[in-house]
Amino acid sequence: MDNFYAPGKNHLFVPGPVNIPEPVIRAMNRNNEDYRSPAIPAMTKILLEDVKKIFKTTTGTPFMIPTTGTGAWESALTNTLSPGDRIVSFLIGQFSLLWIDQQQRLKFNVDVVESEWGQGANLDVLAEKLAADRTHTIKAICIVHNETATGVTNNLATVRKLLDHYGHPALLLVDGVSSICALDFRMDEWGVDVALTGSQKALSLPTGIGIVCASPKALEATKTAKSVRVFFDWNDYLKFYKLGTFWPYTPSIQLLYGLRAALDLIFEEGLDNVIERHRRLGKATRLAVEAWGLKNCTQKEEWFSDTVTAVLVPPYIDSSEIVKRAWKRYNLSLGLGLNKVAGKVFRIGHLGNLNEQTIALITKQ
Amino acid sequence: MDNFYAPGKNHLFVPGPVNIPEPVIRAMNRNNEDYRSPAIPAMTKILLEDVKKIFKTTTGTPFMIPTTGTGAWESALTNTLSPGDRIVSFLIGQFSLLWIDQQQRLKFNVDVVESEWGQGANLDVLAEKLAADRTHTIKAICIVHNETATGVTNNLATVRKLLDHYGHPALLLVDGVSSICALDFRMDEWGVDVALTGSQKALSLPTGIGIVCASPKALEATKTAKSVRVFFDWNDYLKFYKLGTFWPYTPSIQLLYGLRAALDLIFEEGLDNVIERHRRLGKATRLAVEAWGLKNCTQKEEWFSDTVTAVLVPPYIDSSEIVKRAWKRYNLSLGLGLNKVAGKVFRIGHLGNLNEQTIALITKQ
Amino acid sequence: MDNFYAPGKNHLFVPGPVNIPEPVIRAMNRNNEDYRSPAIPAMTKILLEDVKKIFKTTTGTPFMIPTTGTGAWESALTNTLSPGDRIVSFLIGQFSLLWIDQQQRLKFNVDVVESEWGQGANLDVLAEKLAADRTHTIKAICIVHNETATGVTNNLATVRKLLDHYGHPALLLVDGVSSICALDFRMDEWGVDVALTGSQKALSLPTGIGIVCASPKALEATKTAKSVRVFFDWNDYLKFYKLGTFWPYTPSIQLLYGLRAALDLIFEEGLDNVIERHRRLGKATRLAVEAWGLKNCTQKEEWFSDTVTAVLVPPYIDSSEIVKRAWKRYNLSLGLGLNKVAGKVFRIGHLGNLNEQTIALITKQ
Amino acid sequence: MDNFYAPGKNHLFVPGPVNIPEPVIRAMNRNNEDYRSPAIPAMTKILLEDVKKIFKTTTGTPFMIPTTGTGAWESALTNTLSPGDRIVSFLIGQFSLLWIDQQQRLKFNVDVVESEWGQGANLDVLAEKLAADRTHTIKAICIVHNETATGVTNNLATVRKLLDHYGHPALLLVDGVSSICALDFRMDEWGVDVALTGSQKALSLPTGIGIVCASPKALEATKTAKSVRVFFDWNDYLKFYKLGTFWPYTPSIQLLYGLRAALDLIFEEGLDNVIERHRRLGKATRLAVEAWGLKNCTQKEEWFSDTVTAVLVPPYIDSSEIVKRAWKRYNLSLGLGLNKVAGKVFRIGHLGNLNEQTIALITKQ
Repeated sequence: MDNFYAPGKNHLFVPGPVNIPEPVIRAMNRNNEDYRSPAIPAMTKILLEDVKKIFKTTTGTPFMIPTTGTGAWESALTNTLSPGDRIVSFLIGQFSLLWIDQQQRLKFNVDVVESEWGQGANLDVLAEKLAADRTHTIKAICIVHNETATGVTNNLATVRKLLDHYGHPALLLVDGVSSICALDFRMDEWGVDVALTGSQKALSLPTGIGIVCASPKALEATKTAKSVRVFFDWNDYLKFYKLGTFWPYTPSIQLLYGLRAALDLIFEEGLDNVIERHRRLGKATRLAVEAWGLKNCTQKEEWFSDTVTAVLVPPYIDSSEIVKRAWKRYNLSLGLGLNKVAGKVFRIGHLGNLNEQTIALITKQ
Repeated sequence: MDNFYAPGKNHLFVPGPVNIPEPVIRAMNRNNEDYRSPAIPAMTKILLEDVKKIFKTTTGTPFMIPTTGTGAWESALTNTLSPGDRIVSFLIGQFSLLWIDQQQRLKFNVDVVESEWGQGANLDVLAEKLAADRTHTIKAICIVHNETATGVTNNLATVRKLLDHYGHPALLLVDGVSSICALDFRMDEWGVDVALTGSQKALSLPTGIGIVCASPKALEATKTAKSVRVFFDWNDYLKFYKLGTFWPYTPSIQLLYGLRAALDLIFEEGLDNVIERHRRLGKATRLAVEAWGLKNCTQKEEWFSDTVTAVLVPPYIDSSEIVKRAWKRYNLSLGLGLNKVAGKVFRIGHLGNLNEQTIALITKQ
Repeated sequence: MDNFYAPGKNHLFVPGPVNIPEPVIRAMNRNNEDYRSPAIPAMTKILLEDVKKIFKTTTGTPFMIPTTGTGAWESALTNTLSPGDRIVSFLIGQFSLLWIDQQQRLKFNVDVVESEWGQGANLDVLAEKLAADRTHTIKAICIVHNETATGVTNNLATVRKLLDHYGHPALLLVDGVSSICALDFRMDEWGVDVALTGSQKALSLPTGIGIVCASPKALEATKTAKSVRVFFDWNDYLKFYKLGTFWPYTPSIQLLYGLRAALDLIFEEGLDNVIERHRRLGKATRLAVEAWGLKNCTQKEEWFSDTVTAVLVPPYIDSSEIVKRAWKRYNLSLGLGLNKVAGKVFRIGHLGNLNEQTIALITKQ
Repeated sequence: MDNFYAPGKNHLFVPGPVNIPEPVIRAMNRNNEDYRSPAIPAMTKILLEDVKKIFKTTTGTPFMIPTTGTGAWESALTNTLSPGDRIVSFLIGQFSLLWIDQQQRLKFNVDVVESEWGQGANLDVLAEKLAADRTHTIKAICIVHNETATGVTNNLATVRKLLDHYGHPALLLVDGVSSICALDFRMDEWGVDVALTGSQKALSLPTGIGIVCASPKALEATKTAKSVRVFFDWNDYLKFYKLGTFWPYTPSIQLLYGLRAALDLIFEEGLDNVIERHRRLGKATRLAVEAWGLKNCTQKEEWFSDTVTAVLVPPYIDSSEIVKRAWKRYNLSLGLGLNKVAGKVFRIGHLGNLNEQTIALITKQ
């Protein structure tokens, strides 16, 4: 069962953690350093400026927290909201489900809008709720930009339009874990209040940095947010930002240098070119799935994801067997179907620093 | 001011993050992997068994959380206690201060026992409090085994004796961040309920894993602990332990392989030999400080730390100037004095995978 | 023209240098060491024993020379022959041509047996020459086991049979650069007197070690061989072998550790399984070429190479344009056609630590 | 006897191979590449220009040969001289002895000028020989700039002056293995005809490139030099230089990237600053030896070497025991005494990318 010693390389096509480019692996191949020396703060300062570019924000404040996406979620919620606050949240797959579970355990009053898995967030219901909420009891809208379990991309521009249309002041909190740096994402233009991603996704790093970016409105919200928080408290970061030492606790030196190298690669290619490349490789994957005679779990083209494709298998096949066999026989790693779609889909991750020939390994099957 | 391009290697003597051994750097020099493949759970299972050895526990349950020491603190507290719970906590330096600050912000009722910086925890006061607490209002004792800011090691065996003497059921929560894997630490023998460390300390890895180990009594306490927790919730781990997939969210693949290599090095040398080596190098450092005509910040021999030495400088010198100059001129990284002892001490870290010749760089100055 | 900064990985399918497996890259990721310490000789001793296994010899003596294949050739010739010695050498492609050029410049009397490029060594002519050579003027037969320029594998067993049939004492010198560790090669069974390979071929290391293995008869020949040699002189090695220090001059520490890791991978998979895998991937490549409607440069099945396939392109296409375009557009490295077949063929290397999915990148085009 | 698993780092103070800087290790941490793609020639072209700077030549032609210093010697001799040619060669220690041995085995007529070990080349005798050689029978002067076995630096400026004084046309061939990039070396100003070094010395790379630089006069000499040569033949390189593909056979991709990084470090610090740093650290080492009450093997200050110091031990001590003990007990690697001074000296290498604190490990003993 163990494929540790199979000949040749592992072909990694899970939707995270994704392949790390060689220059990034090289940049992280190093000893620890004192994070209180002048060098690390100097480097951090530039990283914080550069990281804003991948969110397409000039007004946001980024936090690079030593945690995972789950921790980044918690950071987004606890810094801006108080227990009991009403939030509207969309359940469209396993990761939005997990976020909602977190929201409930953090004692928010979660108003869940559920869609069939394979569909996007039901924005008609959102419109209704916003229209009905004259007294602004809704404090936040929580939405996953790209649901990694089903390969569904939600339309954030429409969410913003609805909020504007109804003049609703709710915060807009976006999970961009499998979108930012790969899909078109515009924090400032779309009025996103908190956006977040994880280092092991489109940034193509190891797991370990939850990157959270807060709008001025979100920062303002921290002043009244009563959720208990310490490790995830943005104020501790802001205090050290002012001091110019930047870190309330020890960061991973290796990930800082890795992030530097990862951003350099992205800026060298051009963020919009990176996004365009994902569009191209995403489409190629979908065409291949079609050619295999298989169906996309995502039910409509408007939701097709350019970072992950969940492929429906015929009912007489257990998709987890496909994943197991790919791994054992071909050293090929695919994503399992999760929860409601367990056994029914397998997932192909096509995000990060990939090229045509790498994705061809999938599309030419 | 920037020493990035100075010739030769950086000589790293801060008390964390510490030097990473070459075999560990090599082990981490790798691409990401699917953490849901059979290989990573198989590896994790063995790591969890092996990691118990560095705590000297057979009954404890370890959690390897993608976080720092600060997160590990939060995990220890929120999983075992409820807001309002009375805890006795010892303030003896900057890191115990920060932990107490966290305890207060997490809404516990913190009974602070303060000592002069340079002294150990005042266990006489603890004895008094335990004696007086007939109704067992004290729910936990929180103590830093080794205060990294002042180089003070507390006597945990005595803490246990006092608890036993008074038949007090309070939980014993221990910060072992700069002690575990370097100083004599015995979780089971001393009846420690939660012990924790960080990967970047004596384990000699990059920052990124907060390792927390819970006694059966601590696990039992989770059932009634009402502190809000999600990211740090042990129950999420326990659920995945049962499933055999081990991870509620994505771990750092690189750190898992690094931890494997780090533990292999420790077991090869023998944990007790590692501890003995720290004793030897700690003593050498103190003798050198004495020979320089300088004083140890730690006031009594019983508290001398074998992992970090805080050196008092004469009043007419600013210790931060020494640290700055060492870095700029000699590519030598020392620890700054923090808070109350800022400007008064500089700190030498002598923990991790060091040998006589490396420490000689300090002792032969 | 420069593909340095293209997204994603380079797909390397030249017949050398080939892809290095991750564990080997990790093993070489290290500082220098003193090669006169006890550790390096201890390691070298085991390496020399293990390296014999890839030649399938128990009686041979291996030399791991800091050089390339060209240097290994020179070592094979100058240690066993004298200027003016008659040698029979087969010209079947660019690499046999270069070896013959070297033989001539080293002042041997080279009796060249030429075949059309795409054909194997003409062993009928060899039979004639051996039959005619009653006085044993032929001192050596020089043959390339696998001609990397045309993808032609010669039949060494037949060469041995002919020598035995005619009771001819000529030395049998074999270039196994693109065969050893990938194709069926049996030094002892086939009575090969000198066999050689380079680290950057099927061993999947960087360039830098020319591995030469000498039979007892070849070692005996060194005593009368009058060719001038110093750097390539086996006697200098033999002297240090006796001393137990093994190295007449400084070896690459990194390549020694890399070779250790490379051999471990090969032995773990099993040398015969490695060879069988090459057979499978070689066949897959040829079937793909056939399916593209293109012809193999190799004219008969008996000569088909399982490590490299030279593909003939239609006369109206310049094969070097294909190679250039693959590199620029797809970050895909193919081998150019060389000399007589320049512009007419491109070459696919399918040797080293590859698996089905990697080769699929070629075969599924 | 084996120190593989000792805690902490190995402290490497042999005069080669030397410590590799972390940025260079990182640069070499990579897969192979096609050396016939446009990228490698483009990189090589710049490297060849830059490598001239470390020789301080604008008119020389460099060759980066996949070999060691021993191979570089052979390249220097066989490309410029014919068997039987008279050369004057200075025997002052083990490495000049080995070079002379090579010269004799290559069939030159070697006129050996011997000094006591610990003294420099006897230039008075050279003067006499030049004065006497009216018919210019001397074809070359061979001299080691820095004898690594005894820590003796010869005065090359004086050699040039003598040649000029007598108007003697002999070629000046210089072994700069343990000098170039560390000691003051001026190829053009001193009229050196062939200079050479190895990658594992002051360049601080792994072993594997013999860098040889030829003056126009040396290149002219190749036209009449009758020594047999193939692997080491400069003409093969010159042919590929003209083609713009640069490599007659496969280079080590990793060493090319490593050389790029090593040169970048040197140019960033400034070559003259690098040389000045060696002067400072060399002097510090000699002062330490003096303070220990031990003698320098080098008999006069004019010959003191700034890259290696051979330390005489008292007659009742075996210096090889010191080296063995340093290694076993302290993971400290020192150089053995060789040949005539075996057991009498141990050697400290202080060349490469070192700084004050690293050398302090030696000087503060």
